[in-house]
Amino acid sequence: MSGRTGDLPSKQTEGLPAAEARFWTGDYYNQGNDQASGMMDKLKEECGVFGVFGHKDAAELSYYGLHALQHRGEESCGICTSNLGGDFHYHRGMGLVKEVFDRDRLDSLVGANAIGHVRYSTAGASRLANAQPLVFKYRGGDLAVCTNGNLVNEPIIRRELEESGSIFQTTSDTEVIAHMIARSSKDLVEAVKDAFSRLIGGFAFLIMTKDVLIAACDPNGLRPMVMGRLGDAYIFASESCSFEVIGAEYVRDVQPGEIIVLDRNGIREERYAVLQRRSVCAMEYIYFARPDSDIGTINLHSARKRMGQQLALESFVDADIVTGVPDSSISAAIGYAEQTGIPYELGLIKNKYTGRTFIQPSQELREKGVKMKLSAVRKVVQGKRVVMIDDSIVRGTTSLRIVNLLREAGALEVHVRITSPPFANPCYYGIDTPDRRDLIASSKTVEEIRQAINADSLYFLSKPGLLEAVGGAESEYDRGLCLGCFTNDYPTPVEFEDAKATSCSCD
Amino acid sequence: MSGRTGDLPSKQTEGLPAAEARFWTGDYYNQGNDQASGMMDKLKEECGVFGVFGHKDAAELSYYGLHALQHRGEESCGICTSNLGGDFHYHRGMGLVKEVFDRDRLDSLVGANAIGHVRYSTAGASRLANAQPLVFKYRGGDLAVCTNGNLVNEPIIRRELEESGSIFQTTSDTEVIAHMIARSSKDLVEAVKDAFSRLIGGFAFLIMTKDVLIAACDPNGLRPMVMGRLGDAYIFASESCSFEVIGAEYVRDVQPGEIIVLDRNGIREERYAVLQRRSVCAMEYIYFARPDSDIGTINLHSARKRMGQQLALESFVDADIVTGVPDSSISAAIGYAEQTGIPYELGLIKNKYTGRTFIQPSQELREKGVKMKLSAVRKVVQGKRVVMIDDSIVRGTTSLRIVNLLREAGALEVHVRITSPPFANPCYYGIDTPDRRDLIASSKTVEEIRQAINADSLYFLSKPGLLEAVGGAESEYDRGLCLGCFTNDYPTPVEFEDAKATSCSCD
Amino acid sequence: MSGRTGDLPSKQTEGLPAAEARFWTGDYYNQGNDQASGMMDKLKEECGVFGVFGHKDAAELSYYGLHALQHRGEESCGICTSNLGGDFHYHRGMGLVKEVFDRDRLDSLVGANAIGHVRYSTAGASRLANAQPLVFKYRGGDLAVCTNGNLVNEPIIRRELEESGSIFQTTSDTEVIAHMIARSSKDLVEAVKDAFSRLIGGFAFLIMTKDVLIAACDPNGLRPMVMGRLGDAYIFASESCSFEVIGAEYVRDVQPGEIIVLDRNGIREERYAVLQRRSVCAMEYIYFARPDSDIGTINLHSARKRMGQQLALESFVDADIVTGVPDSSISAAIGYAEQTGIPYELGLIKNKYTGRTFIQPSQELREKGVKMKLSAVRKVVQGKRVVMIDDSIVRGTTSLRIVNLLREAGALEVHVRITSPPFANPCYYGIDTPDRRDLIASSKTVEEIRQAINADSLYFLSKPGLLEAVGGAESEYDRGLCLGCFTNDYPTPVEFEDAKATSCSCD
Amino acid sequence: MSGRTGDLPSKQTEGLPAAEARFWTGDYYNQGNDQASGMMDKLKEECGVFGVFGHKDAAELSYYGLHALQHRGEESCGICTSNLGGDFHYHRGMGLVKEVFDRDRLDSLVGANAIGHVRYSTAGASRLANAQPLVFKYRGGDLAVCTNGNLVNEPIIRRELEESGSIFQTTSDTEVIAHMIARSSKDLVEAVKDAFSRLIGGFAFLIMTKDVLIAACDPNGLRPMVMGRLGDAYIFASESCSFEVIGAEYVRDVQPGEIIVLDRNGIREERYAVLQRRSVCAMEYIYFARPDSDIGTINLHSARKRMGQQLALESFVDADIVTGVPDSSISAAIGYAEQTGIPYELGLIKNKYTGRTFIQPSQELREKGVKMKLSAVRKVVQGKRVVMIDDSIVRGTTSLRIVNLLREAGALEVHVRITSPPFANPCYYGIDTPDRRDLIASSKTVEEIRQAINADSLYFLSKPGLLEAVGGAESEYDRGLCLGCFTNDYPTPVEFEDAKATSCSCD
Repeated sequence: MSGRTGDLPSKQTEGLPAAEARFWTGDYYNQGNDQASGMMDKLKEECGVFGVFGHKDAAELSYYGLHALQHRGEESCGICTSNLGGDFHYHRGMGLVKEVFDRDRLDSLVGANAIGHVRYSTAGASRLANAQPLVFKYRGGDLAVCTNGNLVNEPIIRRELEESGSIFQTTSDTEVIAHMIARSSKDLVEAVKDAFSRLIGGFAFLIMTKDVLIAACDPNGLRPMVMGRLGDAYIFASESCSFEVIGAEYVRDVQPGEIIVLDRNGIREERYAVLQRRSVCAMEYIYFARPDSDIGTINLHSARKRMGQQLALESFVDADIVTGVPDSSISAAIGYAEQTGIPYELGLIKNKYTGRTFIQPSQELREKGVKMKLSAVRKVVQGKRVVMIDDSIVRGTTSLRIVNLLREAGALEVHVRITSPPFANPCYYGIDTPDRRDLIASSKTVEEIRQAINADSLYFLSKPGLLEAVGGAESEYDRGLCLGCFTNDYPTPVEFEDAKATSCSCD
Repeated sequence: MSGRTGDLPSKQTEGLPAAEARFWTGDYYNQGNDQASGMMDKLKEECGVFGVFGHKDAAELSYYGLHALQHRGEESCGICTSNLGGDFHYHRGMGLVKEVFDRDRLDSLVGANAIGHVRYSTAGASRLANAQPLVFKYRGGDLAVCTNGNLVNEPIIRRELEESGSIFQTTSDTEVIAHMIARSSKDLVEAVKDAFSRLIGGFAFLIMTKDVLIAACDPNGLRPMVMGRLGDAYIFASESCSFEVIGAEYVRDVQPGEIIVLDRNGIREERYAVLQRRSVCAMEYIYFARPDSDIGTINLHSARKRMGQQLALESFVDADIVTGVPDSSISAAIGYAEQTGIPYELGLIKNKYTGRTFIQPSQELREKGVKMKLSAVRKVVQGKRVVMIDDSIVRGTTSLRIVNLLREAGALEVHVRITSPPFANPCYYGIDTPDRRDLIASSKTVEEIRQAINADSLYFLSKPGLLEAVGGAESEYDRGLCLGCFTNDYPTPVEFEDAKATSCSCD
Repeated sequence: MSGRTGDLPSKQTEGLPAAEARFWTGDYYNQGNDQASGMMDKLKEECGVFGVFGHKDAAELSYYGLHALQHRGEESCGICTSNLGGDFHYHRGMGLVKEVFDRDRLDSLVGANAIGHVRYSTAGASRLANAQPLVFKYRGGDLAVCTNGNLVNEPIIRRELEESGSIFQTTSDTEVIAHMIARSSKDLVEAVKDAFSRLIGGFAFLIMTKDVLIAACDPNGLRPMVMGRLGDAYIFASESCSFEVIGAEYVRDVQPGEIIVLDRNGIREERYAVLQRRSVCAMEYIYFARPDSDIGTINLHSARKRMGQQLALESFVDADIVTGVPDSSISAAIGYAEQTGIPYELGLIKNKYTGRTFIQPSQELREKGVKMKLSAVRKVVQGKRVVMIDDSIVRGTTSLRIVNLLREAGALEVHVRITSPPFANPCYYGIDTPDRRDLIASSKTVEEIRQAINADSLYFLSKPGLLEAVGGAESEYDRGLCLGCFTNDYPTPVEFEDAKATSCSCD
Repeated sequence: MSGRTGDLPSKQTEGLPAAEARFWTGDYYNQGNDQASGMMDKLKEECGVFGVFGHKDAAELSYYGLHALQHRGEESCGICTSNLGGDFHYHRGMGLVKEVFDRDRLDSLVGANAIGHVRYSTAGASRLANAQPLVFKYRGGDLAVCTNGNLVNEPIIRRELEESGSIFQTTSDTEVIAHMIARSSKDLVEAVKDAFSRLIGGFAFLIMTKDVLIAACDPNGLRPMVMGRLGDAYIFASESCSFEVIGAEYVRDVQPGEIIVLDRNGIREERYAVLQRRSVCAMEYIYFARPDSDIGTINLHSARKRMGQQLALESFVDADIVTGVPDSSISAAIGYAEQTGIPYELGLIKNKYTGRTFIQPSQELREKGVKMKLSAVRKVVQGKRVVMIDDSIVRGTTSLRIVNLLREAGALEVHVRITSPPFANPCYYGIDTPDRRDLIASSKTVEEIRQAINADSLYFLSKPGLLEAVGGAESEYDRGLCLGCFTNDYPTPVEFEDAKATSCSCD
């Protein structure tokens, strides 16, 4: 099929060299770094949304809020503001929040309501057209939309819209939603509900007109969204860590199938779908969300530490030190160490300065041992039996590389412990996963993977163990997880013609 | 009505300070400079388009072609390329052609067909969303469009489209056209013809899909477009000066109401409107087009020189030197000097380095005589009776300033001669004119204007004189001019509800 | 005395607002971030040097090596290369290594020998003139010099040089050394030895001509420098962490008073001063150096962990969690937790994206709780008795702020444990310390400090405890520390007229 | 001898490809453009200086003044300010005045005295170290120096200084002068006089300390400098065009061998050399200076017009049109047209947007006729006998190219008329000329040159004709010209060992 380059790219990545299109761009705060590597294979980060209703400093709060969500997307960002009944003001740009906005920009974004977005980093060229919020004019006036997640049936809906004369300037699900809203003859809230009723997937949405701000989650609550208060204002965000930095108070998670409407009359909490058991993406717990965020009542650092403790219970190994792959597995490593009494040590260190523009070493230098981002600490691991904690194994290439780093630095044994079950199936809800055939766990046994990554032993956290760790929390509700990537059992239909996997709808 | 800021601005400028929104941004190659002044009141430049069909270096040729059209738009530019049947590749950016494209960018724009655009400079913030070509996905696949001109009935069509569910991401006429094409159930060429049949205004269009490149002009030929050949390739451009730089051969002007279709089968020259007498914008002859461009058989430097000669015939004045306001009136001044025998001298000089980022002097320094861009050459004008040739008087503030510059440098007398009739009416076809009430000629007599600009005498070229000067050319056809801004007699209806004046459709 | 602004600044900071001149710009990898705060008061980072002799990829190795030393200086960097007998090639710029160099730049830096530098971030304007290596022409040809540290008697030597006709373009010690070398009538190595014999202070130098590369340390070994091998090439660096990334092998530390000369004849290890007991800057162990670096046989993560363990032995407190102030005190916090059995938790988190261009919240928002960089994790600390580990207390304002962050997040008690003795005296050897009167420990008792920082208890690691922790290593030699900032007992004379404290010679 | 790259380059260009090192970078306002060409061979521009003594807006006046001198140097610029007795403030950068300075920068440059500089564009890499004013610390405090011109005996003096221990960070004459001043035991003015007494060459200097501003010219007045008044303030500049833009009044030219000292006691006009007949560089009249500048009583546009008239008298040719090579030869072409009655036409046009970053067409496209900067106007020249006026022929390659452009556009005959005698000898006073062997007039007769440039006829203005044209002015003094490049008869000794030709001392 046809793709294209430019600032309106196709969502498909087949045109890109695999090495470029798929390598790891995320750990919890410095994704993008690994673009330098070409050897990494971590999961791609999704996006983050942030909204304010009713605060005179809406733009500035969004700036700090999005900054706290920066780990969810480094490629581009944007903020759109409005007063009730007033004009839209917005700015979007390529780069980090701190790079895209300066004081003058922020000051120009007047209004008490705002929605903002951070978009994850892709390997391709600069693509400002994809920066969100997208802003449209339609019959009802101005409309701004931003999303995190993926619509499984987007190709079907898009084709229908094209057949009836719609044109698209981006490949984003966001634009599809805007078309659906504009096509409806109902009022905005009903139009949004109608549109959402047709959507299948995992998503969190913020929608703003000059009169209304709407927050909504998919019917299964796959993508997280939290609601908070700051004085009289309402705040919405992908993660609660953004509340702490602006001094907002967490109120509750937005529920599956819920649509929250804020306008001159205050707040209305409605539903467009019956309440189901929540199925939060397990990888949010394991890897994506910041450790200082909470999902429901569960703090993620604590959950990850319990994953490490659970791993220790399930798979103790006699060793000299425990080390975590930074940054995402530090918490779990400390948990493993606490549980076993084996000392936690800094066996691996990541250079925080590596980033987009970093020059990749020549093949020759790489073969000679030039490392870019992650290095093993020789004095710490030399002559030691090492337990190495990581969050997941995707292709296996990264794990192999890290195990070898430890061995080259003198580790006697390397025992790999993973804080999730084997990742054997694609995600349909916004995580940019490789094709199934590239997922090492889809075709290899644990023993085969162990050999492939050159480990002395390998253990994956059991599904019950994962649930137990997450469920250090009180309620059944909080423990509802989507485990599709481990189990191939998804909370929604996924088998459509053209159904989209492996990408975030933000793209 | 509602406006908004951001990268999707409203076309209306009422939100902007008048001084910012309206001052002169154009002379024939360095518009934008006068933004520093706040005192200028020249007409805003329009845009330029450039297209290639069937040349392996389509992007590079577009680069040089757009560079030659840079005077028509300095704010942003873009190129979209494709091979027949292939994918689109494109890049757009803020700034000059040489700033937006580098070798890597050009090399990434593969394909034998291309359309490109330069957009005029506005006073507001950076607005990449308005950069053209706009690129869409629609039922038929990829669609790229770029335009120069203005659709008078765009608001009516846009409202109709919104009523039936269309959403808009820009305020450009270009997007309206794309919607009209996408809504049609006919094939592309018929859809374009249908769409064009509904348009009222002055415009030049280039449209590209993976199969077809289309060039078209409005039914009156208000905005110029020329066709050329380079080997087997076809070239289209707003002005012929761009042919010379790439070594292309001029073939002919695209005719009023004509639509030229290039595809695998070669070239088809069709019409979507009956052929009328051409009404080329007179200001293209007087001011906008580069002096080395031709319209039809007429070279613009020669036409302007004849305007100067005609002025001399109509309004000789005994003086010591003739000087032209640079850069646009140099040719006319030389014509005036040749006709009268009064020596042409460099009485006014413009600093070519002044530009976007130039710091404006403080009020205090300005009052003390700090000049920014234009200065009088004291040794040349001191003690002299000066004939000062200019192309038009819009508000009169610039003329007053220049006359005073000459007087402060010691000119004994300043006789102003203008190479056009009084500019008393707005343009509806793409020139960004002030409101009628701000046009000095709409309310003042020539004598009153003379007083307002502090000249010893003032004369405007007569309408017959202008036609005579332009008609140094052979054919009646070439002399067909739109003189609406002088006569208030326009070649199309202009009195619609919401009819748009004073802006270029590219915005 | 006279100061000046511009790219040749005075070293003195009295002209700067205290808040600007002195706040914290360093933790081990993201210093500069705290410039946004205005509330921080951490010690300023020094600089880092890196050299290669005899490797065809000298520039590229320097790039990776300096990148690994980036935490020692974020303001500017540079690399100068040469082949034996060949021309110099160099490039310097403002910003991070990855920002200043691109592939083209690196490729232009041909030659098998290189010296490079990273310079610490200052609050003032852009100062490219201070970027190192400095490159001179002198009688002997080209000369490149870069340094880390501070010369105590620089003002005296500078005055002597000025009196005899020298001119200075920077305020750097580096230029002083170059003058001294140029004034000597001896050969280069002897000239360098003579010059070094006159220097009093703490410094590490790399000097390059087209024939020779010289590495040297001050007579007390205050500033660290290590030597390594990569194949046949020699490598020098401020810290060993840079060896790991390029695959180089650590050989040994450069000794106090040693001068190592590399030329066509190979390596010569000489001395310009008798060997003394080494006095490595204790703050390198406690705070500056990267945890994966070693000094002598001591790994710094391990040393810091032992500091935490030692603190636990000296000052146990019954608490619920231990947390470290990121990033420098994580290792020590883990040590404290291991020793006490109190769980280590992520009670404080730092946003890694904060940096130079980050917009500071308005006073109003800050008062309302907007945080910039560091935030407490509510779910982790709420209702808990917290042990908070930090490396030092300089003014006390930062500690107060962090304690309050923890209290606002619900901590019941906050017990502060510091991995160093009270910092009561200025540094004369390259750490940019505040005036003595601004050091809280210079005038307050521990109890007074405890009150000032609002802690429930406060304890500073004892001097014997610090030595014990560092001396987990085998040799007496490795334990030789400069403790001047704690004890006011310095390894060199410091009482000169005009003697310089509080700055790094690189400035 | 050894050269080097980097920001401290050698003045020698032998390391550069000839095509890069030597092509035309100057016409009177847009030099640098031709770097894109690789085919040009115009003379390199020199530099420009500007100074203010005693005006509260010294920095801002310097900004506008340097902007007016921008044609003398586009590579870098700088301003240094001071109040009497106060600190220095300065800023330098790569690029145009408008790019290097913004409002904040200007506002930070406080003080009533200022000196500033624009430096000419070179083909090499970014070289900020060469940007002037250079600022030093020496025994007497702060010292800022900027120059235009070249010291013939600089290598001898530099070697002496190096032998006695001086180090150099630039290759600029300016640094040599600073060393000479610093080495002197006398007071500043006497030290400067002593230093100048040793200098041989053509130069204009501005020197500033916190107490004094000094302006000086070489003993022969080779490089121009003018003095003006603005209220009570004194202004100095390379050209008078900069006075007009700031509203300053021209007072007089600085005389050969004069040194003007401004301090608390007012102005002192002294000499360091006996007054000789002035020998202003003839190329300033012919080509370098802006047409709105005056030298002495002579306006340069007028002088150039007279050169054209004189050419017409000396070498009339029957033709249809006269055209000038833009921009420098327009004035002369108008003079030729006026004298002969042959119409002046715009036969050649230059694209003003071409510049540093412009992409050079591939060889293939160039051969196919893609032009970059200059193009012939077909409609104007087709079928015409053309007189083409240019200012000089250096290598001949540019002339050949332009003649061919005209022929390809249909010119029947091309008659080249040059407003200077044959350029057969290098310049030693600041014009960056090619080696003598590359000067076409050094080895070819006029007839041979005519053949080489493919002209139908060729004539060079005679030396008496040139003097006559310049001497349209009243005084003998004003007519004193250096004609060394035409006559090989120089006003100073030039035959030193290592004597420098072909470069500006600013480099």
